[in-house]
Amino acid sequence: MSASAGDRPETTTRDRIVRGAAQLIRTQGVSGTGMRDVVAFADAPRGSLQHYFPGGKDQLVCEALLWSGDASGRLVRYLCRAMDAPTPVQLLAELVGWWRNDLLSNGFEAGCPLVAAAVEVTAGSDAMRAVISEALDHWQGPIAEVLEQMGVPGARATNLAVLMLSTLEGAIVLARIRHDVAPLDVVVDELTPVFEHANDRS
Amino acid sequence: MSASAGDRPETTTRDRIVRGAAQLIRTQGVSGTGMRDVVAFADAPRGSLQHYFPGGKDQLVCEALLWSGDASGRLVRYLCRAMDAPTPVQLLAELVGWWRNDLLSNGFEAGCPLVAAAVEVTAGSDAMRAVISEALDHWQGPIAEVLEQMGVPGARATNLAVLMLSTLEGAIVLARIRHDVAPLDVVVDELTPVFEHANDRS
Repeated sequence: MSASAGDRPETTTRDRIVRGAAQLIRTQGVSGTGMRDVVAFADAPRGSLQHYFPGGKDQLVCEALLWSGDASGRLVRYLCRAMDAPTPVQLLAELVGWWRNDLLSNGFEAGCPLVAAAVEVTAGSDAMRAVISEALDHWQGPIAEVLEQMGVPGARATNLAVLMLSTLEGAIVLARIRHDVAPLDVVVDELTPVFEHANDRS
Repeated sequence: MSASAGDRPETTTRDRIVRGAAQLIRTQGVSGTGMRDVVAFADAPRGSLQHYFPGGKDQLVCEALLWSGDASGRLVRYLCRAMDAPTPVQLLAELVGWWRNDLLSNGFEAGCPLVAAAVEVTAGSDAMRAVISEALDHWQGPIAEVLEQMGVPGARATNLAVLMLSTLEGAIVLARIRHDVAPLDVVVDELTPVFEHANDRS
């Protein structure tokens, strides 16, 4: 990374700001995330926000959410590549397990930025809602895609991706409320039979 | 209600403010809900906030969340009482169905106030997190309780209540993002086999 930072310092600063915004939204929500906090968190020069994000906070939040959706999609593909013989049950366990470790390592302070944005802004801004929806698609799409590669029929793969995302998102919220990963463990346990029979129905 | 309003006008105004705050939190989150908005929404006299809620916005938000948890618990019991021979599958379908109708009737503008509060404040305030946790218990407890009354063993009833809440909360968020109730329909369909076998394991 340091060589590329030397070659393209502007790109790197911009990326750091987008990722920093995503991280702050995870912790304190969209309205709780100030532009100054982002600059400080990303250790970016003053004036860089204005330079890179002429559309202001809205532009930065949109980019942070889209980056988060893409990163979540990449994580799904990465987890599957790391498995010897990927199965739907293993994907469920690995994906929930990744969030379990993440919650433990951040002391339950950071959840999913898409959920944070959704509960604050879906009622107020159709443009922002469209961006959150696109980011969510970039996460759900890869889940359905890898399930299909495991032999799950197309329509069922999409339904199981919706089930996996819904349950994971809700369990993350419950875990944050309780400062306890038990909800994540429970949903893996209870959903395992569903994903064991992933290939049964179309 | 009108007779009781005549007898105890103070109680009624206070209740209207608490419920109004809950409704606004559902739509615009905790930080997006101003005290003046609540007074206007509840059609309450000026100065009534100060009178009833000397602890300010924090007190009102806490009461609104606890009221929401209690109301959700009452809804669970009400839905079961209305069934001829309640089953775990029927409870799942009825509870998700209630939220489905609610989302359609409010144009996807209002979600769950506990989730809204959780993503905004769990990182910032242990006191508020404890209140959200208590409100969540007042919803989860009755679900586990009615499942036990249907013959589901105690530990499994608690796990299924966690699964039901996690999946429902996540599906509500997905539905709001997409302005589409499909996620709710998918999770009922996919979880039905789990709840059909609710009595199988302890």
